[in-house]
Amino acid sequence: MVVGPGLIGGSVAAALKQAGCVGKVIGVSRQATTTSAALDLGLIDEVADLVTATQQADVILLATPVRATRSLLEQIKPHLLPHTVITDAGSTKADVLADALEVLGDQAVQFLPGHPIAGAEKAGPEAAFAELYRDRIVILTPHKNNTAPIRQLITQMWEACGARVMLMSAADHDRVLASVSHVPHFLSSVFMWQVASAPDADVRLHVAGSGFRDFTRISAGSAEVWRDIFLSNREAMLSELQQVRQAFEQAETALLETDETALYEFLEKAALARRLWGSRSGLE
Amino acid sequence: MVVGPGLIGGSVAAALKQAGCVGKVIGVSRQATTTSAALDLGLIDEVADLVTATQQADVILLATPVRATRSLLEQIKPHLLPHTVITDAGSTKADVLADALEVLGDQAVQFLPGHPIAGAEKAGPEAAFAELYRDRIVILTPHKNNTAPIRQLITQMWEACGARVMLMSAADHDRVLASVSHVPHFLSSVFMWQVASAPDADVRLHVAGSGFRDFTRISAGSAEVWRDIFLSNREAMLSELQQVRQAFEQAETALLETDETALYEFLEKAALARRLWGSRSGLE
Repeated sequence: MVVGPGLIGGSVAAALKQAGCVGKVIGVSRQATTTSAALDLGLIDEVADLVTATQQADVILLATPVRATRSLLEQIKPHLLPHTVITDAGSTKADVLADALEVLGDQAVQFLPGHPIAGAEKAGPEAAFAELYRDRIVILTPHKNNTAPIRQLITQMWEACGARVMLMSAADHDRVLASVSHVPHFLSSVFMWQVASAPDADVRLHVAGSGFRDFTRISAGSAEVWRDIFLSNREAMLSELQQVRQAFEQAETALLETDETALYEFLEKAALARRLWGSRSGLE
Repeated sequence: MVVGPGLIGGSVAAALKQAGCVGKVIGVSRQATTTSAALDLGLIDEVADLVTATQQADVILLATPVRATRSLLEQIKPHLLPHTVITDAGSTKADVLADALEVLGDQAVQFLPGHPIAGAEKAGPEAAFAELYRDRIVILTPHKNNTAPIRQLITQMWEACGARVMLMSAADHDRVLASVSHVPHFLSSVFMWQVASAPDADVRLHVAGSGFRDFTRISAGSAEVWRDIFLSNREAMLSELQQVRQAFEQAETALLETDETALYEFLEKAALARRLWGSRSGLE
């Protein structure tokens, strides 16, 4: 059962169907257009409301904006079967875990938070595809109550989608993701906002080239989704932003003081790190 | 004649040869490996030293790091034929123009500064290709001494490479490029540097995904080239960085104060501007 069969949830459904390791996929959504599109596209087999679907589900995947999770868990709880395992695909984990422990109580044992590091600019079931998670990393953040069979089940689910599963604590996840996902989105958006707000924005944007294109691509993402991510991971974000600001000021000072050596060293360290990452990550 | 037949200069040579609108291309480089590779790849027809090449050239394209321009002009001046037109491909223009006016004196009429907005991560003649400038913008920054035939000649040269030529003042060029090219490189490098310097850099980089890839791609560029660009365009850069820092702080404050509306509005403005740019620029 997938709550929110859009890009993220729909791609999981498509991948599991393609791998032949799922019986029936029930789709649930606030928006009837989402479930009907997912049904037409063959991502899901059936549409149901949250309660009806919960009463039949072996696995529940919450693939909604992260701030909807708490309310969904509250609605699911009274109808949750003892054998059902719940997981999510939210971009932050400490807040989701805290909500789950509070809302589900003893049943929190049945909830294992997760986060697939994959996405695309487009949203919705039309954008979903079975290969989205191929060779991508999925982070699971098990808590002490999760049993080994539950970890195995969710690990196997993601591996069937072609993903590589990593385990870490929710706090580590949030710090690491603040750094390599949320801060880049923040910086890219701040920059895009500043350019678009300039009096001569038209000329600037006319001249912008491929470097600008790559650097700003993520800023086109959903404002609603990213506002929620920023707020959900507020503390880790603020801490990382402080580090980034220090680095910014150090580099700015080197430029102000025409410090050629410092400028070169900073640029060279960044360039070497990026080239090494490019050759190792397989994402080039 | 191309001084520096690497990615930028070699691609011009390749495009002009492909368009059939150039007789003989002479390549000049400090580094013998560059000219011999360019010769092997058919980008240039002949290798010569700067003086010999200058004595035969109708058009001289300086495609070297921007800080080498002044010294090259000093070496070229005594041997410059009256009909020869010099242009360059440097990323900053006010400093190049000032150098040219000072070094060339009356002969500065023969120099028309230019900047093709195109590039790639790889450098050197091996990376050159005739299509590099296809549908890309080339900015020319003519000064009052340039005659109409000189403007036409250099405009035609770039149009033969498939580029779209824009004219603006050197000061406008530098401000606009600081904004849409130099600042993104600065931010991308600052961020990459900060991540690579973190105690847990390994985990961070392991988890980094496609958003990180796009956002940091430009930071892999040559530290030497970008240090020189930053220093050559120092004042415009510092002025833009001040604007970016204000935008950064405004967004950071919104996050600190959990100001959902301000966060949403900033992200939405950035997202809309980026989506509009994507659909208009043809660079998606």
